[in-house]
Amino acid sequence: MNRYYRVRDRGAAVWAREEGDRLRLLEGNPFQSPRERGETIEKAGAHLVCPLHPSKIVAIGRNYKDHAAERGKPVPKEPLVFLKPPSSLIGPGQPIRHPGWVGRVDHEAELGLVIGREVSRPPTPQEAAAAIFGAVCVNDVTAREIQDKDVQFTRGKGFDTFCPVGPCVATGLDLGALQVEARVNGSIRQRGNTRDLIFDPAYLVWYVARVMTLLPGDIISTGTPAGVGPLQPGDVVEVEVEGVGVLRNPVQSQEGPQ
Amino acid sequence: MNRYYRVRDRGAAVWAREEGDRLRLLEGNPFQSPRERGETIEKAGAHLVCPLHPSKIVAIGRNYKDHAAERGKPVPKEPLVFLKPPSSLIGPGQPIRHPGWVGRVDHEAELGLVIGREVSRPPTPQEAAAAIFGAVCVNDVTAREIQDKDVQFTRGKGFDTFCPVGPCVATGLDLGALQVEARVNGSIRQRGNTRDLIFDPAYLVWYVARVMTLLPGDIISTGTPAGVGPLQPGDVVEVEVEGVGVLRNPVQSQEGPQ
Repeated sequence: MNRYYRVRDRGAAVWAREEGDRLRLLEGNPFQSPRERGETIEKAGAHLVCPLHPSKIVAIGRNYKDHAAERGKPVPKEPLVFLKPPSSLIGPGQPIRHPGWVGRVDHEAELGLVIGREVSRPPTPQEAAAAIFGAVCVNDVTAREIQDKDVQFTRGKGFDTFCPVGPCVATGLDLGALQVEARVNGSIRQRGNTRDLIFDPAYLVWYVARVMTLLPGDIISTGTPAGVGPLQPGDVVEVEVEGVGVLRNPVQSQEGPQ
Repeated sequence: MNRYYRVRDRGAAVWAREEGDRLRLLEGNPFQSPRERGETIEKAGAHLVCPLHPSKIVAIGRNYKDHAAERGKPVPKEPLVFLKPPSSLIGPGQPIRHPGWVGRVDHEAELGLVIGREVSRPPTPQEAAAAIFGAVCVNDVTAREIQDKDVQFTRGKGFDTFCPVGPCVATGLDLGALQVEARVNGSIRQRGNTRDLIFDPAYLVWYVARVMTLLPGDIISTGTPAGVGPLQPGDVVEVEVEGVGVLRNPVQSQEGPQ
């Protein structure tokens, strides 16, 4: 059980492993046996950045029954797969920018699976599971009216800043029994548990990697439980996945040309 | 009017500019005033590789009336935007791998727009157009039955090798009047012209960059004209965009686990 953060250190972003209330700086990345630099910093004062720079962000729609029900949609027979662009990524503390013209913008708290090694067409879900390195919190921010109007989820879920990820990558968790929660200004809005996932992590990796090769650092976000709701400029939204931590982002109006 | 190729030279992939039947090797990339290395190679013997490594591949559905009609679908009121994963990219000459279990796999010949500089929320289509560096041939290969079953296009258009791109990036073309053609084993299957695009290149860049920041090397594939049809293992498929050249790829069965 480890938690890996990415922190800004003298101008560069470096990986660090949590040790109590300190972070031990690493050389290299946690997917490839990183070496310790023999240096620690205080966790409390660390400047966290987005831990991942995935080549792709795969996300899964309607993977909890209660969320499918609140959206008035059927439970899918197979995983509902879509992509969020890398340009939508932000890290802990960075603002979600609300484009005024899109209408309602919702939070969606999710467990994100972090891929640790290249995987292509694994024969079984069991073998697929071996490619999972760890877990991360994902907020699959969604412009709901655009999503519904477009049918394709690409635009509604693809705006810049619509993919907060963090605060760290946690290893050694039982991915099948983690509480997933969203809070807005401290009030609980979503509370689910990954034991209620319709398609479990191993199956999702198998299903996606049957189509597209997954690379180290790629993310599969596993879907959101019931309770999605709108975010307003001025709000602070938190996604907490048990054992990973709290991903906190303020919401701002998008300035400039719309 | 220039054509930029990416070629393998002593183990590395480098950019080169066409000069008659030779290629002049460059240092750097064509988006940032590359320098000449004072060296040329024969174009005929050059080992071409995929010219682009985009952070994202945006594609547009049903952007020609005749293709929407052959698919029995309405013409969209706004551009239909989806993403193909970077893992689907291949270059000239590389095989398209046909996964046996997916049923029909179609060619879709398209003009691809290559972004030359970062662009985010350009105020007008005219300003958006200034971010277009050039043009490339794209084959938006599609597992048709998966696309129709899934509703989301991600899987059907996202298999490894389902995004051939090349053979070069051409600048200085009139993007509003280019013939776009697909041939299978030498027989013409698709022949359209970008003057029939429902949404033109400038509008597409404006529309997409209003949502997601585009980066140098990103691609917007502009949609396919009528005539899409199946590819079989053993076929050779060619996409030709006038002024860019011919993108040729063999089709093979996908070996190994399905």
